Amino acid sequence: MSAPASLLERAVDQRVSLRLKDSRQLAGRLLGLDDHMNLVLDEVEEITSAGSRRLGRVLVRGSNVITLNASAGLSPKRN
Amino acid sequence: MSAPASLLERAVDQRVSLRLKDSRQLAGRLLGLDDHMNLVLDEVEEITSAGSRRLGRVLVRGSNVITLNASAGLSPKRN
Amino acid sequence: MSAPASLLERAVDQRVSLRLKDSRQLAGRLLGLDDHMNLVLDEVEEITSAGSRRLGRVLVRGSNVITLNASAGLSPKRN
Amino acid sequence: MSAPASLLERAVDQRVSLRLKDSRQLAGRLLGLDDHMNLVLDEVEEITSAGSRRLGRVLVRGSNVITLNASAGLSPKRN
Amino acid sequence: MSAPASLLERAVDQRVSLRLKDSRQLAGRLLGLDDHMNLVLDEVEEITSAGSRRLGRVLVRGSNVITLNASAGLSPKRN
Amino acid sequence: MSAPASLLERAVDQRVSLRLKDSRQLAGRLLGLDDHMNLVLDEVEEITSAGSRRLGRVLVRGSNVITLNASAGLSPKRN
Amino acid sequence: MSAPASLLERAVDQRVSLRLKDSRQLAGRLLGLDDHMNLVLDEVEEITSAGSRRLGRVLVRGSNVITLNASAGLSPKRN
Repeated sequence: MSAPASLLERAVDQRVSLRLKDSRQLAGRLLGLDDHMNLVLDEVEEITSAGSRRLGRVLVRGSNVITLNASAGLSPKRN
Repeated sequence: MSAPASLLERAVDQRVSLRLKDSRQLAGRLLGLDDHMNLVLDEVEEITSAGSRRLGRVLVRGSNVITLNASAGLSPKRN
Repeated sequence: MSAPASLLERAVDQRVSLRLKDSRQLAGRLLGLDDHMNLVLDEVEEITSAGSRRLGRVLVRGSNVITLNASAGLSPKRN
Repeated sequence: MSAPASLLERAVDQRVSLRLKDSRQLAGRLLGLDDHMNLVLDEVEEITSAGSRRLGRVLVRGSNVITLNASAGLSPKRN
Repeated sequence: MSAPASLLERAVDQRVSLRLKDSRQLAGRLLGLDDHMNLVLDEVEEITSAGSRRLGRVLVRGSNVITLNASAGLSPKRN
Repeated sequence: MSAPASLLERAVDQRVSLRLKDSRQLAGRLLGLDDHMNLVLDEVEEITSAGSRRLGRVLVRGSNVITLNASAGLSPKRN
Repeated sequence: MSAPASLLERAVDQRVSLRLKDSRQLAGRLLGLDDHMNLVLDEVEEITSAGSRRLGRVLVRGSNVITLNASAGLSPKRN
């Protein structure tokens, strides 16, 4: 399994942070994904230059994702 | 079934909120979708920085969708 | 038939309103379409921030369509 | 034949007007096209916010076309 | 042969003028092309709002081409 | 093996620097990649015009990568 | 072999200059390429409106390339 696919599989049920092309950041728990890197997150918090707010459950189209930061979720697993 | 496909299937007939690439937000009841994530919504309300207005029934091309927020519609089902 | 394809088929010969990626809105009668969602409209009125004008018959490349509002045309059929 | 393909076929040898993604408008006689909606126009006039000028024969890549207005060219045929 | 392909074939060894998506104009002699409309031009002159300069031999990725003006090169052939 | 694929394979476990389409620069150790040039980096430092910060482990969608600078990581290998 | 492929093959080991979609110019020696026009350059100098700097070895994703100027590198071969 490639490194990107492996990271995503291990990130399920963990908290991740996304940077999207529209400059928004979303942080939430990754519920699942598909081959297009479409993602479902729960307990989502949206962070923009104007502040943050809770969004609940969100489907993100993969083509809008720039980076997925998995450090928060994966750190515990690495110890 | 992948998590994104499952969320979309469960969201049919529920209210969802979309963020589009042209900065518009659309909220409405999801009537259906296809494999390109083209969506049909009814009772649509368009929300822009200039205010909101009712649009009725709207077809949204999937390539313009950034995020689909299904919390409003799915919350009742989860209880 | 998927919900988006069904809406489009029923919208033929009805008036629809399009929002395009270049911020223009086009309203007209839908004459037909193809699998790429390329659309032919007649009696088109173009609405921009600078005003509106009549364009006659127009072919719209599907990739430029953000949303298609079919409420005006479909309302009579639903009664 | 789909409505968009039919309109394009009938527009050959007629005058059409194009709106391109770079905000230019081109008007000219349609000499021919291919499956990607690449178009060849002759006697082209380019219209921008800075004025208009004659360009002669021009190949337009289809992916840059937003709308093709065929009213001028097709009107005579409809009578 | 489609009209766009025919125009391109006839334009080889002729002078053409390109409008690119980054607002540059390139004029030069067309040495050849491929199926993606990638183009090789020689004796290229780049024209921007800041002036013009000579670039020599240039490969242009087809996806950046908006229009190719072949009038200069093709005019002699049409007589 | 093509030069780009060879460079990427040799860069695994080395430090690389990325320039992304959203104007961010990311520097980190390359853990792995897939055929879409999706990349996993560890010990990532993000550098923007507003300063730099540590991000930990990051998945970068390949379509957002403009350039990958491998000099830092590959220099030792070349001696 | 098409003209674009032939130019690229002959440009290997020569100095080339690239114009990228993010307005950067990169000049360097072309080490190799693949079918997506992904390029590996060495001894790269980056030129922006803010000045220039040395980058060493760089992988450029082909989709970001607008033009490749091969005149500098190919001139000696043509004599």
